[in-house]
Amino acid sequence: MRQSHFFCKTLKTNPKEGDAISHKLLLRGNFISQLASGVYSFLPLGLRAHRNIEKIIREEIEKIGGQEVLLPSLQPKEIWLKTKRWDEMDPPLFRVKDRHSKEFALGPTHEEVITGLVKLAIQSYKDLPVALYQIQTKFRNEMRFYGGLMRAREFIMKDLYSFHADKDDLEKFFNKAIGAYEAIFNRCGLKAIKSEASGGIFTKENTYEFQILSEGGEDTIFYCENGDFAQNREIAKVTAGIKCPKCSGTIKEGKSIEVGNIFRFGTVYSEKMKVQFTDASGKKQLVYFGSYGIGLTRLVGTLVELFHDDRGIVWPKVAAPYQAHLIDLRSNLQKGDSAERFALYEKLQKAGIEVLYDDRADISAGEKFADADLIGIPIRLVVSARVDQGKVEVKKRNEQESKIMAVEEAINLIN
Amino acid sequence: MRQSHFFCKTLKTNPKEGDAISHKLLLRGNFISQLASGVYSFLPLGLRAHRNIEKIIREEIEKIGGQEVLLPSLQPKEIWLKTKRWDEMDPPLFRVKDRHSKEFALGPTHEEVITGLVKLAIQSYKDLPVALYQIQTKFRNEMRFYGGLMRAREFIMKDLYSFHADKDDLEKFFNKAIGAYEAIFNRCGLKAIKSEASGGIFTKENTYEFQILSEGGEDTIFYCENGDFAQNREIAKVTAGIKCPKCSGTIKEGKSIEVGNIFRFGTVYSEKMKVQFTDASGKKQLVYFGSYGIGLTRLVGTLVELFHDDRGIVWPKVAAPYQAHLIDLRSNLQKGDSAERFALYEKLQKAGIEVLYDDRADISAGEKFADADLIGIPIRLVVSARVDQGKVEVKKRNEQESKIMAVEEAINLIN
Repeated sequence: MRQSHFFCKTLKTNPKEGDAISHKLLLRGNFISQLASGVYSFLPLGLRAHRNIEKIIREEIEKIGGQEVLLPSLQPKEIWLKTKRWDEMDPPLFRVKDRHSKEFALGPTHEEVITGLVKLAIQSYKDLPVALYQIQTKFRNEMRFYGGLMRAREFIMKDLYSFHADKDDLEKFFNKAIGAYEAIFNRCGLKAIKSEASGGIFTKENTYEFQILSEGGEDTIFYCENGDFAQNREIAKVTAGIKCPKCSGTIKEGKSIEVGNIFRFGTVYSEKMKVQFTDASGKKQLVYFGSYGIGLTRLVGTLVELFHDDRGIVWPKVAAPYQAHLIDLRSNLQKGDSAERFALYEKLQKAGIEVLYDDRADISAGEKFADADLIGIPIRLVVSARVDQGKVEVKKRNEQESKIMAVEEAINLIN
Repeated sequence: MRQSHFFCKTLKTNPKEGDAISHKLLLRGNFISQLASGVYSFLPLGLRAHRNIEKIIREEIEKIGGQEVLLPSLQPKEIWLKTKRWDEMDPPLFRVKDRHSKEFALGPTHEEVITGLVKLAIQSYKDLPVALYQIQTKFRNEMRFYGGLMRAREFIMKDLYSFHADKDDLEKFFNKAIGAYEAIFNRCGLKAIKSEASGGIFTKENTYEFQILSEGGEDTIFYCENGDFAQNREIAKVTAGIKCPKCSGTIKEGKSIEVGNIFRFGTVYSEKMKVQFTDASGKKQLVYFGSYGIGLTRLVGTLVELFHDDRGIVWPKVAAPYQAHLIDLRSNLQKGDSAERFALYEKLQKAGIEVLYDDRADISAGEKFADADLIGIPIRLVVSARVDQGKVEVKKRNEQESKIMAVEEAINLIN
């Protein structure tokens, strides 16, 4: 993408708005734009990062058998009455009436919809297990918004739901889901701590949150320094400084961001929604049910919260909106459409590299470098009068030193 | 995908629900499921077809310079008051209140949001032109719903918006957009008729709808048999049987489905939203604005409306949820996990073919064939005791005759 044509207007300094560093940097780098409190537009740079994370999530969820669907946001009141959550949800539901005076919730989650859907499709034990997921917009009527993408009112989640013939099979899938979540967060460069948490109103089974330690987080967890135990403060039976109940390690306390959660609901929803199947002996049985969420929008914010420095974002390679940022400082070539001007840009694209090409004229080298640091693409390539033909000056965003190398060598480095 | 594990429960006969054949077939083939009137879930088969069309649209819109964004559904009342559409929209807006008693519309379109967004980013003529698009969920508070995906209350649109320094530049882009739309519909196997239509309350300029002739359509157009003239009945100055005003052809009348529309709004929105830029001479000017929609969800329905027979859907290759449907009739192999059982399925996958593998045991050949015809994947491959090792029986969905050929030959046919 030629930056001269790119819809991206960065700010020179951090904006006043924004109560988290990720919020400030994402606004300043024009990754997102605020439409209302807790309601954001994803601009081209931000959407590209988002899509990269989507891809990772899809791959890992499909590996454990998740099949993708797309469920509606408009959810009839009746299904929420069945689970008694119409009035109970916290935060409360966004509600909307149609022209026939029928009431709908704007879906903050899809347990009601998916159990209703699966109920229609499942007759026999042969139809189980089933795991369905979606990457879809949620609406949460928060009283208070925080940190831009960290707690928004409209945001995108990956939500996965699984249905099983018995508790053992749910348990097996639950463990697979833990594995998938660990793979997803690892691939994003994050160390997620699986923390015990409250199951909410519907289950006393242990549920888990996936927490990322970060000063920008709203949660607090107590966790063992050896990584084999963690609890959310809300339910914690430990405190900082004591010995871990599982090993000889010491318990620490840390602020953290919840990026995922997984619930073994057992038969609670099936009872309320009457989701049954016929087992091998011909008897009706309730379906076992699990629910697994990842706050995708929040995950984008979390990456920025963790990976930045005082000059801007330092995207991990897998999430970066582009693989390389080509900065053109050849003032003699910055106007016109000469083949020489675009040769390197085209060569990189032909090598399969997604490259943002800063071809802007009348912008100083300093401004271009500042924008590159702010946007945070992992590898910066500079062409200038000082660099010989066929070579390029390469600097990684997370390193200080630049190095002049042959273009082919740079391509190998990026790929 | 192994069909024994696939979330797809077909019905043996057309359901009673559904007032359009596409609606009946999509329900019966379990491509979609109804949650409420005019509100549908996309199930795995349906979502795959949807995604294929998304991909075509992205490619063509990016070719003309569209940059992808993702804008919110929750749209503050104030921006709708600015354009005076808060009370004027038809159908009326879905409205929702937050916990601070602030009102929002659920976006049925994004002119207000996008002009507000671009207003923040545009200062100089150098920032123009800009073309932004999204593939995103819309909400329309219809009184009456029709034909399943044909007129829903929640659906996905591709909406593109372009901003220009002057009328000529808008005109140039408008023509490019027409080209992109023609390419999109052509690639889907559809012959779209560009029909003159009313511009609504905001423009007297000719706008165009892209109409597909179909008995299942809700619109009526008058069009020249030679293809150089068409008008929507709502504004038509011609009738069937007369001579075309542009050529010697005859005007015909036909029912049709509107799959896209394009508007040259000029400076109407810029005036209301005060979107200005500084021109080369330093003077403030209003931005010229165009808006271009494709009803993506409706397009899925339209394809089924046009491409089906009495046994089911006949997907065009580009939209088909899978490229090949492998039907396994080897009753001796249909249980267990022998390498022999999966050899062909794996070979096809290794050849890069997206294949739905009907490996279901205890289902008759007749049922499998009926499902295959209903689902409508373009190429059916059958392995059975009757077919020699290394060969496969190949039948195209839109042909009667099957043919036994070497697997390699079948792979070439599919790719």
